[in-house]
Amino acid sequence: MADSLREPALLDALRGALGAAHVLTAAAEVEPFAVDWRRRYRQLPLAVASPANSSEVANVVRLAAAAGVAIVPQGGNTGLVGGAIPATAGREIVLSLRRLARVRAIDADNATMTVEAGVTLQAAQDAARAAGYLFPLSLAAEGSCTIGGNLSTNAGGTAVLRFGNMRELVLGVEVVLPDGQLWDGLRRLRKDNTGYDLKQLFIGAEGTLGVVTAAVLKLFPLARSSATALAAVVDARAAIALLRELRAALGDRLTGFELMHADCLRLVERHIPQQRNPLPGHPWYCLIQLDESAADEPLSERLQAALERARVVDAALAQSEAQARALWTLRENISEAERLEGFSIKHDVSLPVSAIAEFLERAGPLIGAALPGARIVAFGHLGDGNLHYNVAAPAQADSAEFVARNSSAASRLVHDLVHSLDGSISAEHGLGQLKREEICRYKSEVELDLMRRVKQALDPRGLMNPGKLV
Amino acid sequence: MADSLREPALLDALRGALGAAHVLTAAAEVEPFAVDWRRRYRQLPLAVASPANSSEVANVVRLAAAAGVAIVPQGGNTGLVGGAIPATAGREIVLSLRRLARVRAIDADNATMTVEAGVTLQAAQDAARAAGYLFPLSLAAEGSCTIGGNLSTNAGGTAVLRFGNMRELVLGVEVVLPDGQLWDGLRRLRKDNTGYDLKQLFIGAEGTLGVVTAAVLKLFPLARSSATALAAVVDARAAIALLRELRAALGDRLTGFELMHADCLRLVERHIPQQRNPLPGHPWYCLIQLDESAADEPLSERLQAALERARVVDAALAQSEAQARALWTLRENISEAERLEGFSIKHDVSLPVSAIAEFLERAGPLIGAALPGARIVAFGHLGDGNLHYNVAAPAQADSAEFVARNSSAASRLVHDLVHSLDGSISAEHGLGQLKREEICRYKSEVELDLMRRVKQALDPRGLMNPGKLV
Repeated sequence: MADSLREPALLDALRGALGAAHVLTAAAEVEPFAVDWRRRYRQLPLAVASPANSSEVANVVRLAAAAGVAIVPQGGNTGLVGGAIPATAGREIVLSLRRLARVRAIDADNATMTVEAGVTLQAAQDAARAAGYLFPLSLAAEGSCTIGGNLSTNAGGTAVLRFGNMRELVLGVEVVLPDGQLWDGLRRLRKDNTGYDLKQLFIGAEGTLGVVTAAVLKLFPLARSSATALAAVVDARAAIALLRELRAALGDRLTGFELMHADCLRLVERHIPQQRNPLPGHPWYCLIQLDESAADEPLSERLQAALERARVVDAALAQSEAQARALWTLRENISEAERLEGFSIKHDVSLPVSAIAEFLERAGPLIGAALPGARIVAFGHLGDGNLHYNVAAPAQADSAEFVARNSSAASRLVHDLVHSLDGSISAEHGLGQLKREEICRYKSEVELDLMRRVKQALDPRGLMNPGKLV
Repeated sequence: MADSLREPALLDALRGALGAAHVLTAAAEVEPFAVDWRRRYRQLPLAVASPANSSEVANVVRLAAAAGVAIVPQGGNTGLVGGAIPATAGREIVLSLRRLARVRAIDADNATMTVEAGVTLQAAQDAARAAGYLFPLSLAAEGSCTIGGNLSTNAGGTAVLRFGNMRELVLGVEVVLPDGQLWDGLRRLRKDNTGYDLKQLFIGAEGTLGVVTAAVLKLFPLARSSATALAAVVDARAAIALLRELRAALGDRLTGFELMHADCLRLVERHIPQQRNPLPGHPWYCLIQLDESAADEPLSERLQAALERARVVDAALAQSEAQARALWTLRENISEAERLEGFSIKHDVSLPVSAIAEFLERAGPLIGAALPGARIVAFGHLGDGNLHYNVAAPAQADSAEFVARNSSAASRLVHDLVHSLDGSISAEHGLGQLKREEICRYKSEVELDLMRRVKQALDPRGLMNPGKLV
């Protein structure tokens, strides 16, 4: 093959451009970049290239393009759909952005921050806080996921209700295009109507249209008053009614509204030391967070009054920062407790909030009939219509075997139902390799064709993260 | 020409599809659709087609495409850049969306509303309010501009500080593509990461990639407490410091922060009956609006306390709804007062908020040197970095002649300075015909090429609103 003839020359050129230390090819060295963290995807790359800045990224892309070799951009490698792992063995370059880890600038009067793609989400939050601001994106992997990955997957998380997804938090981007050209779109403007909003193309594109190297992020006032409560409700309908009431009464102060089935909390109590549900005995729970920038606001009193007006069955208000932390820890430990319980079939779906109750009422019996004894682990960001609807093996079953045997059938049931209720089969994790085929079942031919036309227009040679998304 | 041979057949086919009453060709009938409201662009179309629904829109586009005739989508025809007026005489079809005026659905639990493109912004606001919700987009033309136009121009206005531009308020769209296919992207989801976010392509595209026929809009809790104040400041730097302090102290309650030079208010007092600046004698003013969804909040007291802490020179707090209305009326009458004073050279620019003071300090002397005696009318949405920086003729001069002679030179000075400070030459009005050439001076070749590739991918025959934007 012509390409393989060129590969040694490409590796030499990359070493010349980045220094030999930043072009890894030994199996042991590339392994951490070749496996996703859930260990469902593994494919060795031709090499891992780790440029130090945007112009080195451009050099890598240009050299690879000249050799006809594909690029797989990778940030913190915390993705859940195989989007940052090569799709074929030994032929693609993993382009790691981790060395692009500078906070380039904070513009306090403009309430913006310019950061490189390899900055971790937590480092970005910390830099904002040090400047007296909040960067509100928040999700479980924040210690290791990167801004570039957040941007390329349009990350969501727990603060979307008030602040939106990553897409809403970005004002500008810097991108290396598939031919190696650098596009400087690092605008710091809240209003700019001078043509197509090109940054939107790269946000959520999972690296299939170019490599994001930096971004301008919006900053918000820090929260200086907060309140947290766990409220028990009889069913999802009651949770939705509560959401609506709290939103009307408390407006923008309502920054989080998570729904959890009691079984989720039982799993946490079983597997995670020192975790306890303070309101046992109810079927469903809502975790409610209020925040606001003014100091000394009586938010707990307001939340208590609102919960009383809404006549919730029972509620526990955090009386201290430590208690608030403990309530959130319950929520954040669900995924880990699931993992310790065994394998399960995971679904990251979204629905109109108004359709969530019907979904839950119909999905349970469908799964029950198809997979007798299977256990549902249902929780999510109710305020955004985002459910993590996972199907675990019956209590005594071999969970790995259960998942291997039933994954396709269970996902088909769940996704078909989601689709029939105008929902999405990937709320916040993206398509990657995992759902790239699956999505063709649900999107119209018109829409798939539009996606292909966009891909063709920007990456006609198909060298940017092939085998992902489109 | 082959096209002109086909035109009578096209008109017949359109009459067959829509009914003869909805295909206008007589000069008197098409005139209102052929001139923009500032009367700077006028070009007669081949016909004005007014379909009643999305499938009729698709029919019009399909028939026009088959005949190789271009389409100019038009909503309320309130645009300021000639984007909805044909670019060439007698050869294009104006496609009026005004008959698509249905509110299709309101989903209260999901806090969304599905409306057709021809619904006026005010009708959309009213429908939301009737359902107990706020649709926050607000701008001077709201009585006649339409949702389709708001979407195609990514409209801004006075509430962007808290709620964002139209782009942030849209969850889904329905679009007739340039070949007449209908794309149903009417999602009601706050999280959906299943491929490229195609709706972003059509938002702000000024009708150059397809015809938006309907949209799903986000709704918000109604404001039930408000406060309004006019604050005097010594200069723009003081205004920016005040914005930052209020934002930190009041957070999301701060929904409007407008900056106005004293000369703007003098113009209003001179030309509009019963208008009075309640704090005369200062150089600059900030109009500040607080809103919040909880009832009976002491927002006026909070605003007063915050203004005292910030040590503003002077301030007038509205003591009633009528006084609040009066303060906003001052602001909203600036453009009309300008018009009554004579012609002026208008600029709709945006800058990082942190660069606004430097812009104002440098622009005044530049204009003063180039156009002695010219008067600056500077106001805008400071919270978004959006300035309306207009240059009026010297007091005794013929304003029409002044504008005709100096427009290019003044705009060049203003736009070059804006660009050098990382700003945008079109903050909220778009490019249309007015700035389509001008933008090529400021955008990089890389970016212009990306825009052309997107256009080529979606509208390869160039039949969607030619001569606009790209």
